[in-house]
Amino acid sequence: MISPSRGFPEAEFRSRTESAQGLMAKHDLAALLLSTEPEIRYYTGFLTRFWESPTRPWFVVLPTNGDPIAVIPSIGAHLMGQSWIKDIRTWSAPDYEDDGIGLLTDALCEIVSQDGRIGIADHMESHVRLPLADLRRLEMALLPRPLVSDMAITRRLRMVKSDSEIAKIRHAATIATDAFDKVPEHVADGMPLSDVFRRFQTLCLDAGADWVPYLAGAAGQNGYADVISPATETPLMVGDVLMLDTGLVWDGYFCDFDRNFSLGRASDAVQSGHATLIDATQAGFEAAQPGATIADLFHAMNGVVNPSGHVMDAGRLGHGLGIQLTEWPSIIPQDHTVLVPGMVLTLEPSISVGDGKILVHEENIVIRDGGAEFLSRPQTRDIRVI
Amino acid sequence: MISPSRGFPEAEFRSRTESAQGLMAKHDLAALLLSTEPEIRYYTGFLTRFWESPTRPWFVVLPTNGDPIAVIPSIGAHLMGQSWIKDIRTWSAPDYEDDGIGLLTDALCEIVSQDGRIGIADHMESHVRLPLADLRRLEMALLPRPLVSDMAITRRLRMVKSDSEIAKIRHAATIATDAFDKVPEHVADGMPLSDVFRRFQTLCLDAGADWVPYLAGAAGQNGYADVISPATETPLMVGDVLMLDTGLVWDGYFCDFDRNFSLGRASDAVQSGHATLIDATQAGFEAAQPGATIADLFHAMNGVVNPSGHVMDAGRLGHGLGIQLTEWPSIIPQDHTVLVPGMVLTLEPSISVGDGKILVHEENIVIRDGGAEFLSRPQTRDIRVI
Repeated sequence: MISPSRGFPEAEFRSRTESAQGLMAKHDLAALLLSTEPEIRYYTGFLTRFWESPTRPWFVVLPTNGDPIAVIPSIGAHLMGQSWIKDIRTWSAPDYEDDGIGLLTDALCEIVSQDGRIGIADHMESHVRLPLADLRRLEMALLPRPLVSDMAITRRLRMVKSDSEIAKIRHAATIATDAFDKVPEHVADGMPLSDVFRRFQTLCLDAGADWVPYLAGAAGQNGYADVISPATETPLMVGDVLMLDTGLVWDGYFCDFDRNFSLGRASDAVQSGHATLIDATQAGFEAAQPGATIADLFHAMNGVVNPSGHVMDAGRLGHGLGIQLTEWPSIIPQDHTVLVPGMVLTLEPSISVGDGKILVHEENIVIRDGGAEFLSRPQTRDIRVI
Repeated sequence: MISPSRGFPEAEFRSRTESAQGLMAKHDLAALLLSTEPEIRYYTGFLTRFWESPTRPWFVVLPTNGDPIAVIPSIGAHLMGQSWIKDIRTWSAPDYEDDGIGLLTDALCEIVSQDGRIGIADHMESHVRLPLADLRRLEMALLPRPLVSDMAITRRLRMVKSDSEIAKIRHAATIATDAFDKVPEHVADGMPLSDVFRRFQTLCLDAGADWVPYLAGAAGQNGYADVISPATETPLMVGDVLMLDTGLVWDGYFCDFDRNFSLGRASDAVQSGHATLIDATQAGFEAAQPGATIADLFHAMNGVVNPSGHVMDAGRLGHGLGIQLTEWPSIIPQDHTVLVPGMVLTLEPSISVGDGKILVHEENIVIRDGGAEFLSRPQTRDIRVI
């Protein structure tokens, strides 16, 4: 398959920055302070797996006018220097006396007047990636400038994807679709689930994934009880339903969907449960028109899987997707976000199949002018048999 | 190779909890509040890749007496129910009105009297995995009970590993050693670096890794400029030094080391640089005796790679290792931690080889009564040639 090109043109980062600056002006914010991987990557393109190490904090500051400023450990200077960011300030981290807080304070005080407000992510799905003692130190050092809510500016912007972003997610989904198609050739009863997980990750890499940050799954007779467990050494058995759910990454963008396989002929309950999940996904897909709300999607799907109105333990029937495995919003009845073209979502209905067992199905879609489009390849009502 | 057994006996979690409770009493803390994956896993064994999703917060509370209490999204109840934790309180997350804060407040107020103090991680390498607005809400709801520093209790305990933990890290390191040994069979000049990265991850999985959360590396003529970059599509060329640095995981425990390969005969500068790195690692290894300090390790290694006393941009020459890719402490001159048996460390000297290029070498060791022991297989002074 042909890959999209890696990275983004500088114009895309400039446009994201300018959009944020427009919202900052509206909310009277003199700067945005970014501290997490997805926020920093969104505006700068800074892509590295080095975030796996919790040792060093990283900061980017967005002023109301002009380009972002990076305040980062010197180990990242070379890589950040390849981005569009020109103002890169570094310290030798880790520094047990002052791990970047002094340098960050200086940068913020330089661009924010004493009566200016500094926005920081404080909403659901966010956290501040900074030791709490340093956050408190920073708040004192910035006085009288308050650290206030970023009004979810970055979260709101990230919710609507550009064509280049959609192309990357689609490519990740195509890779996963390929890998899932090869599962029946590589998996058989008797194989421990941990080997299945290993084999599947290899299939994802062979199909072109850059890496496989997320793989969950389960196998059990006539369904499974849990969808977030790691693999056990238990061997697959005839009668098991095997579910694999992957978030693989291509050029920093995730897909996130699953597939169910029956080891041998599926029971009637499993066959009917799987068919209902596909119907629910299709109902969600059809409801996913610009102008509809996230709550509409929830009800379209839940009406199929739970006509009684019951809500499953998973707590939601899908979510946003992009730089992270899961992004805003959550498909729950309380979410009234209006769908607009460019939103990328997972549709993820689950259903009880008796005996405390469940089945979960998931697909990825993008909202377009005329309605939704699948990024993953939609499945038939018949569960695949191995 | 024979795997150690997965998981830990309940006694190990009880012993960790009791050690924490002893320190809590000493520091006058009525409870510890845990919010991040490594903290929660350390005391409960709760192992899942589901943390990749930023949507839901997870909490565990350690009282001064008795067992930990889990306050978690209902999607995690089944998996947590398989741990030794019996008191599991759940809510249907995400909840846009109250995403667990009410339930958590109730749990804390139940076990902490009005004049009790609640400890939370606030030190280097930590963060609070909770939206800042919710943290502020929680602080108000807990009043008059203050949220104070956890005095790095968990970080201190985690620094010294049990035999079971060391066995898991050793197994991860053995898997990586095997994978590195196979690199020359699978890599050749002309291969794009992104394919090399993919192939190497497959080798790790084939050798038995559960997953490969971290892979960084670089390739360049006579050295490289950066060790945290993702792979590019640039093909390997004769004269390149290829460095691969992996943090693969087995049963939730990391190894973290790298290997350098020369594509064709290495230049004199590369050969000599590599030999010096091995000498520096050996000097660190020999200095790693119980009773020595982390600063001693730094000086032993830096004296070999930088006789002038200069410190490289990486900022440190190694670090702790275990549940996370990098853990406390950092091998820097300012760290005076005294080595005790059971500490697991990486030795990671780097050296300039001219033209802005560097080489980095890394091994994993454990401190034993009689001195250090390698967990990765130490390399010869000669760089491997492909």
